[in-house]
Amino acid sequence: MNVNLQSMGLIYNNQKLKILDQRLLPSVEKWVTVTDVDHMVTIIQTLAVRGAPLIGVAAALSFGHFALYNKSEYKDKTELEAIRVKLRNARPTAVNLLWALDRMKDEVPDLNPEKLFDLAVKIFEEDVVMCDKMGSFGSETIQDGENILTICNTGGLATVGIGTALGVIAKAHQNGKKIHVYFCETRPLLQGGRLTAWELKKLGIPHTLICDSMAATLMKEKKIQRCFVGSDRIARNGDFANKIGTYNLAVLAKFHNIPFYTVAPLSTVDYHCENGAQIPIEQRNPKEVRGVEGSFGSVEWAPTNCNVYNPSFDVTPNELLTGIVLNVGVKTIKEFHTFMKATNQH
Amino acid sequence: MNVNLQSMGLIYNNQKLKILDQRLLPSVEKWVTVTDVDHMVTIIQTLAVRGAPLIGVAAALSFGHFALYNKSEYKDKTELEAIRVKLRNARPTAVNLLWALDRMKDEVPDLNPEKLFDLAVKIFEEDVVMCDKMGSFGSETIQDGENILTICNTGGLATVGIGTALGVIAKAHQNGKKIHVYFCETRPLLQGGRLTAWELKKLGIPHTLICDSMAATLMKEKKIQRCFVGSDRIARNGDFANKIGTYNLAVLAKFHNIPFYTVAPLSTVDYHCENGAQIPIEQRNPKEVRGVEGSFGSVEWAPTNCNVYNPSFDVTPNELLTGIVLNVGVKTIKEFHTFMKATNQH
Repeated sequence: MNVNLQSMGLIYNNQKLKILDQRLLPSVEKWVTVTDVDHMVTIIQTLAVRGAPLIGVAAALSFGHFALYNKSEYKDKTELEAIRVKLRNARPTAVNLLWALDRMKDEVPDLNPEKLFDLAVKIFEEDVVMCDKMGSFGSETIQDGENILTICNTGGLATVGIGTALGVIAKAHQNGKKIHVYFCETRPLLQGGRLTAWELKKLGIPHTLICDSMAATLMKEKKIQRCFVGSDRIARNGDFANKIGTYNLAVLAKFHNIPFYTVAPLSTVDYHCENGAQIPIEQRNPKEVRGVEGSFGSVEWAPTNCNVYNPSFDVTPNELLTGIVLNVGVKTIKEFHTFMKATNQH
Repeated sequence: MNVNLQSMGLIYNNQKLKILDQRLLPSVEKWVTVTDVDHMVTIIQTLAVRGAPLIGVAAALSFGHFALYNKSEYKDKTELEAIRVKLRNARPTAVNLLWALDRMKDEVPDLNPEKLFDLAVKIFEEDVVMCDKMGSFGSETIQDGENILTICNTGGLATVGIGTALGVIAKAHQNGKKIHVYFCETRPLLQGGRLTAWELKKLGIPHTLICDSMAATLMKEKKIQRCFVGSDRIARNGDFANKIGTYNLAVLAKFHNIPFYTVAPLSTVDYHCENGAQIPIEQRNPKEVRGVEGSFGSVEWAPTNCNVYNPSFDVTPNELLTGIVLNVGVKTIKEFHTFMKATNQH
C-alpha cells in the first residue's frame, strides 16, 4: 500500500508521518517525523501541531499508522485501546481530537489495524473536502471590495485542507473577489502574527496585522465589513469556544453592526454539550502573558512572578453570531437549532 | 534658591533635572540628567518620559531650568521663545505639553527666567495636588470588594503625583477599600505589563495582569465592577483620546453594563477641540507590532515587512462614559457639558 498525503502542515509518505513544527514559523520550516505514540502526545501538548481539525486528523493518522506498522507498541487489543485513549486525552478542549479517535473505535470496533489505517486516510481526505465546502459556502457571503477581520490561525496550517475561517477568505480571493484581510496578532501565543501572516503572504492576499486591541477602532472607522473566526467546540445551542479574544471581537462586531461568523466542520459540534457554560476552559502557563517565547527568541517584560490570568479559550454566546459556516452550508442560529434537533444523536 | 522636587519618575535637585528612563522598567531604574533642550526633546520623542501630565511638567521644568541656569542656550528672547516652541512641538498629541508651555508664555509674557522657573515649580506642585483631588473624588465611586480594570500606565510614573486612573485606584486602596486590579498589558508598548505591574507591586495593591483581548471574558464572568482609564486629550463634548485599546474597553464595558470613567486633570481638556473627530491620531512605527523591543530584549515574530496598522491612540465617544473624574469632581457627560459652557475660554 502506497499512501501519500500532503497538506501545509502534515505529510504522510513512505510509511512515515511528518508534522510541521508550527512553533518555528514563520522563520523556520522544520518537519518532525513522529517516532511513537508518546512522541505524538508530546507534539499535541506542546502545540507543535495545532488547529482543532488538524490535531484530530494528525492524531487519527498516528493511531492508524502505529496500529498497522508499529505493532511493537502494543501486545493486544486492550493495549491498542489504551493507546487510543492516551491520544484522545492529550488535549481536553480539542473536540475534533475526541471526535476523530472516538470515530476510529465506533467504525472499527474490533480495532483491526488495516481498517484503522484506512479510516484515518479517509478522515484526512474528508477534511480536505469539508474545508473546500466551508470555503465555498462561506465565501458566498463576502462581497467584492470588503475588508475582513479574523483572529488566530484557521487556514491550511490548522486543517489539512484550505482551512476554516481563513479557508473562507482564501476561497473568496481565489474566486477573484478583491478583499483585504485584517488579522489580530492573537496574544499570548501570536498565532495571527506568526502563522496567519505567513499563510496570507503565501496565498498572495492583501493583509494588515493589528494588535488585538486595535480591532475596535478599525470597526468604528468602518474599515471592517465582515468577521470570520474559527471554533474549537460548538455547543448544541450554537455557543462556541475559540481562541481567547474571539468573544471580544464578537461583542465589538455586535456593537458596530458588523456580520460575525464562526466557521467549522460539523465534527466541531459537541452533541454532549448543551451550551457554552458547559465548556471547560484551560488556564495556561502564566509565563505566556509575562512575555513571549518562541523560535524567534524569548523575552519577559513583566515583573517576575507577576500574577496572571491566562485562559486559552473564551466562549461566545450564540446571539452574537450572524451565522455558522458549516460544511453543510451557512446557518443562522435559528436554522442551526432546527438542524441540531434533526441530527441530534443523543 | 534651593528647589527640591521629587516624584516617582522625575527629580529636580542641585539645579539638575533628572528623568527616570521608563523604557528600562521594571528591571532597571536608570536616571538620566537632562543636558540641554534638544536632549529633552529626544527624551520626550523616544518615550523615555511618558504619561501626558508628566510630559507637560517635565517639559515646563526643563524650559524654566534652561531659561534660568543655561543662558548659553539662547542669546535673546526670540531664541528663548524658539526653545519654548521646540519643546511644545515635541509630541503633537500630548495636550498637557502644549498646555504647560503655552501657560509659561501666557503667565510670563516677557519670558523672565526667574518667573519662568518659579512657574514651572508651581506647575509641578499643582500636579501633585490635582492628582490627589482626582484620587479623592474618583475613589468615592469605588465600593469595598470591587475588582477594577485599567489599561496602560496612569500612576505615579505618568504624573508627578499619585496618578490619574491609577491614582484613583491607589487612593481607594489607601482608604482601606479591599480592591483587586486587573490591568491590560497594553500592546504594543506594554506600559501595563511593565509599568503598571511595577507600580501596583510597589503600592502593595492585589493585581492580575491580562492580555488586552482577555478583558471581555473577565467582564462576562462578572469579575470587573468598574473601569478607570486615563486620557491624553478631552474634547469639549467629552470625547477623549487615550492609549490604543481604550475604546475597545469602553465598548465592552457598555455591553456588559459596567461603569466606565476617564480620569484626567482639567489641563487635559482641549477647548479648541470640539469633538473626537478633530483629534489627530499618530501612526507609529510598524516594527512595534511585528515584535517587541525594550530593555528586556528585542524579538520579532511577524514576517519581515509585514504590513501593519499601528495607531498610538484611539478616540472614545462621550456616550460610552459613565463619568469624567476631574480635579474639580466627578462629572457625568451632561454635567461636563454644562461645566464646559460655563468655563469655555474661547
